[in-house]
Amino acid sequence: MSPQAPIFSSHPGAAARLCVHTITTKQLSLEQCLEEFPKRDVSGITVWRQALEGRELAGVGRRVREAGLEVVSLCRGGFFPASDAAARQRAVDDNLLAIEQAHAIGAPLIVLVCGAVPGQSLVESRKQIADGIAAVLPAAAQAGVRLAIEPLHPMYADDRSAVNTMGQAHAICDSLGSPESLGIAVDAYHVWWDPELEAQLALAGRTGRLLAFHICDWLTPTGDLLNDRGLMGEGCISLREMSAWVDAAGFTGHREVEIFSHRWWATEPGHFLDEIAASYRRLYS
Amino acid sequence: MSPQAPIFSSHPGAAARLCVHTITTKQLSLEQCLEEFPKRDVSGITVWRQALEGRELAGVGRRVREAGLEVVSLCRGGFFPASDAAARQRAVDDNLLAIEQAHAIGAPLIVLVCGAVPGQSLVESRKQIADGIAAVLPAAAQAGVRLAIEPLHPMYADDRSAVNTMGQAHAICDSLGSPESLGIAVDAYHVWWDPELEAQLALAGRTGRLLAFHICDWLTPTGDLLNDRGLMGEGCISLREMSAWVDAAGFTGHREVEIFSHRWWATEPGHFLDEIAASYRRLYS
Repeated sequence: MSPQAPIFSSHPGAAARLCVHTITTKQLSLEQCLEEFPKRDVSGITVWRQALEGRELAGVGRRVREAGLEVVSLCRGGFFPASDAAARQRAVDDNLLAIEQAHAIGAPLIVLVCGAVPGQSLVESRKQIADGIAAVLPAAAQAGVRLAIEPLHPMYADDRSAVNTMGQAHAICDSLGSPESLGIAVDAYHVWWDPELEAQLALAGRTGRLLAFHICDWLTPTGDLLNDRGLMGEGCISLREMSAWVDAAGFTGHREVEIFSHRWWATEPGHFLDEIAASYRRLYS
Repeated sequence: MSPQAPIFSSHPGAAARLCVHTITTKQLSLEQCLEEFPKRDVSGITVWRQALEGRELAGVGRRVREAGLEVVSLCRGGFFPASDAAARQRAVDDNLLAIEQAHAIGAPLIVLVCGAVPGQSLVESRKQIADGIAAVLPAAAQAGVRLAIEPLHPMYADDRSAVNTMGQAHAICDSLGSPESLGIAVDAYHVWWDPELEAQLALAGRTGRLLAFHICDWLTPTGDLLNDRGLMGEGCISLREMSAWVDAAGFTGHREVEIFSHRWWATEPGHFLDEIAASYRRLYS
């Protein structure tokens, strides 16, 4: 990985480990993200693949590093299940492409939103997910890119992911023989309700599987299943407690702000970034 | 309400065990429900408390039975957690009232939507839920009314229920010493995603805790967290498989159609009831 630019802050280190996903500020181009993120002490960036469109990949990686940012991960691979074999092969091919893209921009990790097919049994979908991961793992290892299974909230079990708990993510890692290149991405939004969360995080630490930590908040009421996430502190998730569990598991990577929000996306993105940095400091100072 | 022609089924008894919640046809008064339900071979009714307003309770029970319907349960008690003791006592008082109401109309069961307080830890809320249930159980036993903990989907963990899996419902039953008057209400909408579902249903059968079974379907996409449930067959839940597990657990009670849907509520309720009966027959014939 690239050398990190020093962080200049009135509270030195207060924003340490802050990463923002390009989807969070999707009104900004990738180039604008590289300009605006460092102004708020953001030191990491997770790049969504749509932000790469029309760009030369090696150049993207170089410009990110020149901006003083670390590429934390590439979002997203996955969506392995499908009702026919040809569609499953297309998914494998797309994940192989994602691995090439991650390698080209210097991303050490790809987050997997694993997929699900409405009406197909979740057991069958999880089998197809394991098969799909197995099919692309050798290429990932060869490229030096790790894959992180992201358990998604059970409200997405119909068509986004049949992996809805950390326990299921661990089970897939186990079933594939605990390969070095495979781990878990933990997103507070998806797992905060899980009564096994603390134990599963500790297990992820012990097994070296804790590869990413995404943060945002759960709003009451939530007006939309997809795009009504809250900024940290706006909702009910005990992010301090969960972050302490993540730290206790030995995770030292970035905390990644991933917020899908029609409400925030309607605001000025520079203001949104200011609010992200401020809420992050309140949470972790 | 237009009068509905009687349905003469080519498969007599195909609608056996069909119960409808008054909230499902909330455009109808309780009296209209008693008139319309039996025309579609609906043999059970679960009464929501708002349907009782302004009515003399013993008379309600008599009229339900005269209509040929069985009162399956009263919905709903619960909402035990609160941030101060006075509010928790008010919740206990309200549940004692619900027990009186259930007894008065001849309902053998009250469904508990257990409650949660945004920002209060789910562990604390579950403790308050157990305490609240313990406080009202003697009155329930005295009245011959059982209480059923309904695990709610994790997307309601913020403010509706800190009990989000059958496993947690079992844990509360265990913690209270497995009282005879306490069990579990299983709603397909809330638990269909749970990888432990089959095993937890079997456990509920073995422990005598399986007291109610609610059905509807999960739509893709779901446009609203509360009021966009589907009619059986419209969505992705494997209701046949889940019903087989429920049957295998020894449950012989009614299958209760509980659908919150702005879309269906905007249709003519007689037509909605026809569709409920038709989809029920397709599912179970």
